[in-house]
Amino acid sequence: MKFIDYLSQTALKNKSALCAGFDPVIATLPRYFQDLGSSQQTSADAQVKTLTAFYAFAIETLATSIACIKPNIAFFEQYGIAGLTALKNLLAIAREHRIPSILDAKRGDIGSTAKAYADAYFTSGDFQADAVTINPFLGFDTVQVFLDAAIAHNKGIFILVKTSNPGSADLQDLRVGTHTISETLAAWIAEHSSHLCGSTPEAKHLSGLGAVVGATHPTHLAALRAAMPQSLLLIPGYGAQGGTAADVLPAFTASHLGAVINASRGLMNAFPNPLAPLEELREALRATANTLSKPLIKL
Amino acid sequence: MKFIDYLSQTALKNKSALCAGFDPVIATLPRYFQDLGSSQQTSADAQVKTLTAFYAFAIETLATSIACIKPNIAFFEQYGIAGLTALKNLLAIAREHRIPSILDAKRGDIGSTAKAYADAYFTSGDFQADAVTINPFLGFDTVQVFLDAAIAHNKGIFILVKTSNPGSADLQDLRVGTHTISETLAAWIAEHSSHLCGSTPEAKHLSGLGAVVGATHPTHLAALRAAMPQSLLLIPGYGAQGGTAADVLPAFTASHLGAVINASRGLMNAFPNPLAPLEELREALRATANTLSKPLIKL
Repeated sequence: MKFIDYLSQTALKNKSALCAGFDPVIATLPRYFQDLGSSQQTSADAQVKTLTAFYAFAIETLATSIACIKPNIAFFEQYGIAGLTALKNLLAIAREHRIPSILDAKRGDIGSTAKAYADAYFTSGDFQADAVTINPFLGFDTVQVFLDAAIAHNKGIFILVKTSNPGSADLQDLRVGTHTISETLAAWIAEHSSHLCGSTPEAKHLSGLGAVVGATHPTHLAALRAAMPQSLLLIPGYGAQGGTAADVLPAFTASHLGAVINASRGLMNAFPNPLAPLEELREALRATANTLSKPLIKL
Repeated sequence: MKFIDYLSQTALKNKSALCAGFDPVIATLPRYFQDLGSSQQTSADAQVKTLTAFYAFAIETLATSIACIKPNIAFFEQYGIAGLTALKNLLAIAREHRIPSILDAKRGDIGSTAKAYADAYFTSGDFQADAVTINPFLGFDTVQVFLDAAIAHNKGIFILVKTSNPGSADLQDLRVGTHTISETLAAWIAEHSSHLCGSTPEAKHLSGLGAVVGATHPTHLAALRAAMPQSLLLIPGYGAQGGTAADVLPAFTASHLGAVINASRGLMNAFPNPLAPLEELREALRATANTLSKPLIKL
């Protein structure tokens, strides 16, 4: 099944456009999970046990309320082999629960190196995910390698177009002629998006050649939505970084899902009851959509 | 010891500006090393054994002939946990041999995520290296996180300024006003480079706030060298990608080292005698330098 069909199916089944961001910091996990590791012989084994147990619980708790998960590989890499072993475990658990995974890796490299990254995430190895985030700075020949691999393996890719941080203006907003760098990237994505459109009725006009656009730039978000009419948008920056329900609403389209909204800190800090902030976010989206007479018909 | 002092010391001791790029593809390794793994119980254990043994041999063989090594993490990630365990092992072996390591990871992410990556590579974890390559697309606030971490831990960073692939023109060559994106990045680097200058006489005018500039663009290389007078340049693209000794010469400065030239495929494919192409490269550099009356005085 293609990534975009899988994600749309999950989102509609769960009536949710929420993406649960997994950015582990062991010292901030509930005491119960931190203590689980204490019976292990090495500190690395303790980290694997704590992280795996916490995310097994998180995925099980969230499985019927989210559209996808987004583990950020940086937070796993900081724990070395132990963290990456936990990442491997949680990706397998997500597959068992039929929850799509977007590996937030922001990778970009040339030719054979890009292919090695694509092999790492798109074939049946330890870090197999359903989609990956891509940094396009090295040029379209490098993005094309990931696109070709995504087509071959029925995966998705999300190109960084406008990130949520203030410094995103430094390069992404630079204007060359009539277009900013972000708009140039959006045009390339729109031109190629049909290659990753879905096969199911729900997703046939939606593409798994997606884009990352921060919730913290609502004006950009509306313009970039229009510039990439088919692309699934992955929206970070909601909540802790300042984005509101009204800010993210332009990301959705009238006829289909169109976007997934990421929540990381807000969600994970609420354990053992992550469903509360998740319901808040869902209600905020629905209420704002109704106010604007733009109901999210399927969610 | 600061990264730039460590690298300069090694380069001068070995009279070498060569960086050995490690991009493992197991199927292309000498048969002897592939077979080493066959006694292991699992294919993952076999991969760890083969990769660790090959790079232990490579580092030992090259230790007195190179300035540094550059493992590209993508090629290790493609083998999952096994590949990354081998990476951990070879980084430790390089430390034992006192060979500086530049982890080619091309990372870039916002705030706390960039900090997690910096912790992964700059503190005493599994992937501790002496320097790391950085993708600046997310903006200067994200690069600053890596710079601050490099200052705190005496490490180096190499910002992607002009990569060696043809598609590097797509974004990096775009001109905004009077400057290309590459030149804008070079100006930022030059402005901040003093923070990572060395303490030893050999390196006090050289900075470990370095830049990646491809050998495949000799005109850009000369201009970017001038724009970043203190920065150590990491030059990929020599050999297999088409860069020649004359192409890379502008990267060096008259008064100090100034650059390291990466060789990956050319070097590794020459095992069991990697010293032959390495000597060829060194001789080509010296001969070209003499022709141009610009001797590399210390190499």
